[in-house]
Amino acid sequence: MVKISEVNCEACKEDAKKLSEQDISDQLNQLPEWSLVEEEDIKKLKKAFKFKNFVDALEFTNKVGALAEEHNHHPDILTEWGKVTVSWWSHKIKGLHQLDFVLALKTNSL
Amino acid sequence: MVKISEVNCEACKEDAKKLSEQDISDQLNQLPEWSLVEEEDIKKLKKAFKFKNFVDALEFTNKVGALAEEHNHHPDILTEWGKVTVSWWSHKIKGLHQLDFVLALKTNSL
Repeated sequence: MVKISEVNCEACKEDAKKLSEQDISDQLNQLPEWSLVEEEDIKKLKKAFKFKNFVDALEFTNKVGALAEEHNHHPDILTEWGKVTVSWWSHKIKGLHQLDFVLALKTNSL
Repeated sequence: MVKISEVNCEACKEDAKKLSEQDISDQLNQLPEWSLVEEEDIKKLKKAFKFKNFVDALEFTNKVGALAEEHNHHPDILTEWGKVTVSWWSHKIKGLHQLDFVLALKTNSL
């Protein structure tokens, strides 16, 4: 089983294949509070982060944005008062890639 | 008919009533490209703004955030690569308030 925290991101950027159902299931167990959702037939990793006000939420949005730019891989980020919902998936392959799991894990540490 | 650009925001903050169907229809005509959507029985003003990359989109998100903080009234802001979708409505009254139209118009000028 792949341990997400040990994945080399440089390698996974090159490897543009969808993860198998088994890989997804194994790696989801390593991502507390992230949900696997399916929107328009595309599997995505989604998690809502709570904050005490709008400013703190927007600050987190910017941190996620910086992480996204660093890896040239961009999630959807819904910013609301006291809440930010992040969705990671890979547009090109219309599904989940190793990098999505790596960045979901990194999002937890922001 | 109320001209949105001439509304005094201080006044509309105090006035916590929903706009009538007629007011909504009249004022929507003054907001090019904003759509009236209904989500979970709540009317909202929604518009997608396009950008050439993620950084520009996130910059716009921050501008909308600053506008929201200035007026202590906060929209939902969905940030994607090259696109920001803003939804204005009033949580307290579960519908559209004069301030939502004022801030939608201001969002156009950011």
